[in-house]
Amino acid sequence: MSQVSFDAAELAGRFALGLRGDGSARVRGVGTLARAQAGQLAFLANPKYRSQLADSHASVVVMREEDADGFSGTALIAKDPYVAFAKLAALFEPRPLRTPGIHPSSVIDDSAQVDASAYIGPHASIGARSRIEAGAVIGAGCVIGEDCVVGSASELVARVTLVARVRLGQRVVVHPGAVIGAAGFGLAMEAGHWLNVPQLGGVVIGNDCEIGANTCIDRGAIDDTVLEEDVRLDNQIQIGHNVHIGAHTAMAGCSAVAGSARIGRYCLIGGGAGVLGHLEVCDKVVVTAMSLVTSSIREPGEYSSGTPLMDNRSWRKNAARFKQLDALTRRVNAADKES
Amino acid sequence: MSQVSFDAAELAGRFALGLRGDGSARVRGVGTLARAQAGQLAFLANPKYRSQLADSHASVVVMREEDADGFSGTALIAKDPYVAFAKLAALFEPRPLRTPGIHPSSVIDDSAQVDASAYIGPHASIGARSRIEAGAVIGAGCVIGEDCVVGSASELVARVTLVARVRLGQRVVVHPGAVIGAAGFGLAMEAGHWLNVPQLGGVVIGNDCEIGANTCIDRGAIDDTVLEEDVRLDNQIQIGHNVHIGAHTAMAGCSAVAGSARIGRYCLIGGGAGVLGHLEVCDKVVVTAMSLVTSSIREPGEYSSGTPLMDNRSWRKNAARFKQLDALTRRVNAADKES
Amino acid sequence: MSQVSFDAAELAGRFALGLRGDGSARVRGVGTLARAQAGQLAFLANPKYRSQLADSHASVVVMREEDADGFSGTALIAKDPYVAFAKLAALFEPRPLRTPGIHPSSVIDDSAQVDASAYIGPHASIGARSRIEAGAVIGAGCVIGEDCVVGSASELVARVTLVARVRLGQRVVVHPGAVIGAAGFGLAMEAGHWLNVPQLGGVVIGNDCEIGANTCIDRGAIDDTVLEEDVRLDNQIQIGHNVHIGAHTAMAGCSAVAGSARIGRYCLIGGGAGVLGHLEVCDKVVVTAMSLVTSSIREPGEYSSGTPLMDNRSWRKNAARFKQLDALTRRVNAADKES
Repeated sequence: MSQVSFDAAELAGRFALGLRGDGSARVRGVGTLARAQAGQLAFLANPKYRSQLADSHASVVVMREEDADGFSGTALIAKDPYVAFAKLAALFEPRPLRTPGIHPSSVIDDSAQVDASAYIGPHASIGARSRIEAGAVIGAGCVIGEDCVVGSASELVARVTLVARVRLGQRVVVHPGAVIGAAGFGLAMEAGHWLNVPQLGGVVIGNDCEIGANTCIDRGAIDDTVLEEDVRLDNQIQIGHNVHIGAHTAMAGCSAVAGSARIGRYCLIGGGAGVLGHLEVCDKVVVTAMSLVTSSIREPGEYSSGTPLMDNRSWRKNAARFKQLDALTRRVNAADKES
Repeated sequence: MSQVSFDAAELAGRFALGLRGDGSARVRGVGTLARAQAGQLAFLANPKYRSQLADSHASVVVMREEDADGFSGTALIAKDPYVAFAKLAALFEPRPLRTPGIHPSSVIDDSAQVDASAYIGPHASIGARSRIEAGAVIGAGCVIGEDCVVGSASELVARVTLVARVRLGQRVVVHPGAVIGAAGFGLAMEAGHWLNVPQLGGVVIGNDCEIGANTCIDRGAIDDTVLEEDVRLDNQIQIGHNVHIGAHTAMAGCSAVAGSARIGRYCLIGGGAGVLGHLEVCDKVVVTAMSLVTSSIREPGEYSSGTPLMDNRSWRKNAARFKQLDALTRRVNAADKES
Repeated sequence: MSQVSFDAAELAGRFALGLRGDGSARVRGVGTLARAQAGQLAFLANPKYRSQLADSHASVVVMREEDADGFSGTALIAKDPYVAFAKLAALFEPRPLRTPGIHPSSVIDDSAQVDASAYIGPHASIGARSRIEAGAVIGAGCVIGEDCVVGSASELVARVTLVARVRLGQRVVVHPGAVIGAAGFGLAMEAGHWLNVPQLGGVVIGNDCEIGANTCIDRGAIDDTVLEEDVRLDNQIQIGHNVHIGAHTAMAGCSAVAGSARIGRYCLIGGGAGVLGHLEVCDKVVVTAMSLVTSSIREPGEYSSGTPLMDNRSWRKNAARFKQLDALTRRVNAADKES
């Protein structure tokens, strides 16, 4: 890896940031405010960490204008230092070399189409009638089944499975172990045995979506499962068949949405939270971690369920009383009536 | 893909369904009642959707006899329209071509046996003493370790791992990313360090089971982990070592059963629900989503834990009071005694 | 598989155990106390199973001294019979043969280093500048990206992904489907769209750690995600970026730790439990199954959240009252003041 480096003035110019201090201060990597060394770029976004500024060894720090007053080092001034940092840090991100072409160990069906500018890694396989568009990256060990599309500049990092009828838009990133387009969990009981309901739909994933490691998105039963553009899914998530997720919604790790539920735009679903099947959640809803959505949500806002963490002894006492809560309430109601 | 099509009379005959309307009405695919187009077959099972019937463009609709009165279109009459639909829809399911044979990129141990009618896909590997029976499908990227059996007509869709001593019955379907037969989580503490307890058992999976994407089933410590016939596991499920699951039980996504627990027959375990280790759950138990089973269940019925979803402000107030619930109950008890 | 066998005196000598009964009693495998057959070794650790001792057909039983009084069979005496059993059972564990060398179907980058005593299985790939140390085992279908290290005697069982900048210590075991070093979930919102925050850190995993099947450990944003030595993670776990887990901590299946949280040493995290981001959990904390840690824990001990399991009818009544718990408490408080 050749090591890139930039000076502060260059960075200010490239990203239209303000500059305070020494424009020739040179950085060749990033660090946290507390642990950065000379030659590194750090950022201050959360006021909580302001006290770390004076002692930081970072050569350049991205911050808000108001934080720069009295700072003796070199600062890049941004309205949103976290956004600015995200862009700056990308300059230092090591990107594995992906020369366009098809690795000889991969197996491509005769009816599949692979753009000449795409990269197909070792031990990948691509099934009938699937199409890999310009600049797409199919990492090592990916399995793409039948009738799939990987849009231009999308990347399947490694060991991703697109089972069947999965259409990814442009610039979609899918992390290792994710499984998209497996048959949804559709069962009918007949004479004491389960009967599989065929899952004839597909999955449609909009531009700029990100799908985390080991996350699953099942294909639809009849219509498709849909993620609109810029949906961000963390790791270990389960999305059932025929779910519809609105644009710009982000879901944290281990959350799950059961079949046919509809989540709005700009929602934030906390880690381990669940949404039951066939519900509707409107735009701009926040569900806190490990909460369970059991009925549709029609008003934007923050929603929660669960009980607070306690030492186990206290918890046991209170939890036992939860079993009597209805009875307790009735007794208090009755006493009120009497008095 | 050649496109299949059938007329209503043909379908009625094949599946012993009643027919109302035009027996020559032709369908070449399926749709939902609300969105089906001409040439598609739809179904009406849930009375909730009855109002969609009049406006549906479906050419043929499967329904109960009582729903057909006054319906002007073509109907197939079934006692259980969902079961009938499942069978009808299977006619239209695109099935990838799996010509029997072993893909040249796969790696088969000399001591493994593969039936001549089985299909072994690209980049699959099969370990020592394992056996693949007639008509089985081993999809791309599957890893089968030592001493495994894949029963006849079973299918590992793609990228499935059978680690060691895993025996699948007939017609078992395993979805991508599932890991069956990994070493169970058995630890003993010795002098401040963890010591692994060897996991010498295997996994036995009965006929007609289905294992979801990225689901894990660990192998037993001494005896085997067992799923009886027709057990249906959704995605992202965790089954610990030496668990025993009775026939026809279905578990929804992200649920988990800890080591040595025993689940009965015909149980339904909701999404994200958990069962602690060494417990017994009898037949015909329903556990609702995200509930935790903390003691054995001896009576069939429906069981739940958790609290309802609220707006976060209300939730915070009520949740804080949960910490005082025992004290509150004691105060009310004391007041009752006084009065 | 050649079948190994040992007599009781030989086992007593090898593991410094006491011997009662017939030193020539021969075992060639293990069984549970209840189901062992002649020729098998069993153990009695939990007093709950003491009643099974008299009827056991095991040829040799490992037990505490006090349990051996009156036992007519052959006993191996250990202070901790479970620890002794773990060591004894390892003698009977079938280990797949892993002759050192690189399988011809694997793909190794020119700049990667593979020790001559390492094993690289079928369809594995190893990226630029990665290093596989002495005696390491890289199972079938593993994908190792750039700048990774697999320490000596470590094993990636099969289909493991190390994405980038992942350094495993010695004797680390990683089970199938695990994904280590994927980009953490770092997002900044700019003008209504999500912007990815580059994840430039790596993952450092100490000696003797174990990582379960389908578990994910994301790489750090700037600094590394760290597991100290002898951390034991079960299956389906999610570890966010920049998490730090202390030595000898064990986490059960489906648990999750959000970004930048810090877990102490010798903690036990129950199945499905969660720890929110940026929190600190001190040493020797036990979190029970499916509990959510919402603030830092500074005292060792056992912690819980949630409500007990009830039949659904009772649960509905009590859960509905939870929504009125704050109001109820206020009413009781007010009544107390009045009286």
